[in-house]
Amino acid sequence: MSRQGDARRERLSRARLYLVTDARSAQGDLDTFLDSVLTAGVDIVQLREKEAEAGDLLRWCPTFRAAADRHGALFIVNDRPDVAVAAGADGVHVGQNDLPPAMARAAVGDDLILGLSTHSAAEYDASPSEADYLCVGPVHATPTKPGRPATGLGIVRHASACERDGAETRPWFAIGGIDTETILEVVEAGATRVAVVRAITESPIPASSVSDLIEALQGRPVS
Amino acid sequence: MSRQGDARRERLSRARLYLVTDARSAQGDLDTFLDSVLTAGVDIVQLREKEAEAGDLLRWCPTFRAAADRHGALFIVNDRPDVAVAAGADGVHVGQNDLPPAMARAAVGDDLILGLSTHSAAEYDASPSEADYLCVGPVHATPTKPGRPATGLGIVRHASACERDGAETRPWFAIGGIDTETILEVVEAGATRVAVVRAITESPIPASSVSDLIEALQGRPVS
Repeated sequence: MSRQGDARRERLSRARLYLVTDARSAQGDLDTFLDSVLTAGVDIVQLREKEAEAGDLLRWCPTFRAAADRHGALFIVNDRPDVAVAAGADGVHVGQNDLPPAMARAAVGDDLILGLSTHSAAEYDASPSEADYLCVGPVHATPTKPGRPATGLGIVRHASACERDGAETRPWFAIGGIDTETILEVVEAGATRVAVVRAITESPIPASSVSDLIEALQGRPVS
Repeated sequence: MSRQGDARRERLSRARLYLVTDARSAQGDLDTFLDSVLTAGVDIVQLREKEAEAGDLLRWCPTFRAAADRHGALFIVNDRPDVAVAAGADGVHVGQNDLPPAMARAAVGDDLILGLSTHSAAEYDASPSEADYLCVGPVHATPTKPGRPATGLGIVRHASACERDGAETRPWFAIGGIDTETILEVVEAGATRVAVVRAITESPIPASSVSDLIEALQGRPVS
């Protein structure tokens, strides 16, 4: 692995707040939105546009790449290893029905971060070693993932227990309907990292919600 | 380039009839359908499922791969260089809003065939050298490409002229609403290769339509 791969994984190890967003629902200008939430403390930003063609993704990526660079954050592309490489992203995130981790790893090489969604304790336990981090959820049902049943907090407790006893050392992010209210129970269940969509993209004051989420992750009460 | 890349391009140079199909609209059993049309003379088969996730594509690919192998045909994956590599396809086909040819080439390496859609004489003339073959059209409006205006026969005549005077040496396929009737004017305009979807997938007797299309390409009247 190169120094670039090491630097990316070092950033990943310190990441707490992970924003998943499309390029269009961002409030106002995308540049301004990203600067605002990255300044407020988002560590990782993922471009997720399930319906977009690669050409559209490639047109949006430079805005994400530049914003992440300005703030020392990581930029991850959802679903498309080929686009992640072409766009110079820091990594790619795949789901259980995307390119399997071994194939995604082969496509991106060793220097990019690879993330994987898991939706049950069994999927979490079976997650291939090619993945650098895991997402667990959706804890709550969410319109962002229609048709995907909520896992509840059990998977969060499971991941937390695996981390505590050393069975799993990779960073993991709780995801799914987590906002400045629901984050409290997620943290109580053992999560130290969360990934969110609407808690930031639909917030009246995104930067303020970022601060609140980070405070909750630090164990302090949300303002 | 390896011998595998050479063999694929040699097959491409001899190809006349190119079937683009999804995995679900094939009549009856997919295996049986593919065997039938490949026996009748289809030279290239492309799996095109714009809405499918990579995991679904990967589940369908082995059926296409095996059928193509049984008949010495080429198997191409639409849009996804990463899936084409992972599935052991012979190549990938990209459109003007997919991964650009240079990036797609970087993702698949030199041994895979790369195809590119062009929708005007200008796009045809500007097609990057990374593409091994070109599609020109849609000659007629087609429900397969909603919102894409028909090019008419002008682009076919243009491609034919470029081929005749040596300005362009790569194989090109006329595409878009070509069936056993409309192929006659396309051949008259200079096409020696065509790509079709519905002319085969929606034919009452797919193998018979394949034979008719091939006869037309050979300049003989359609039965």
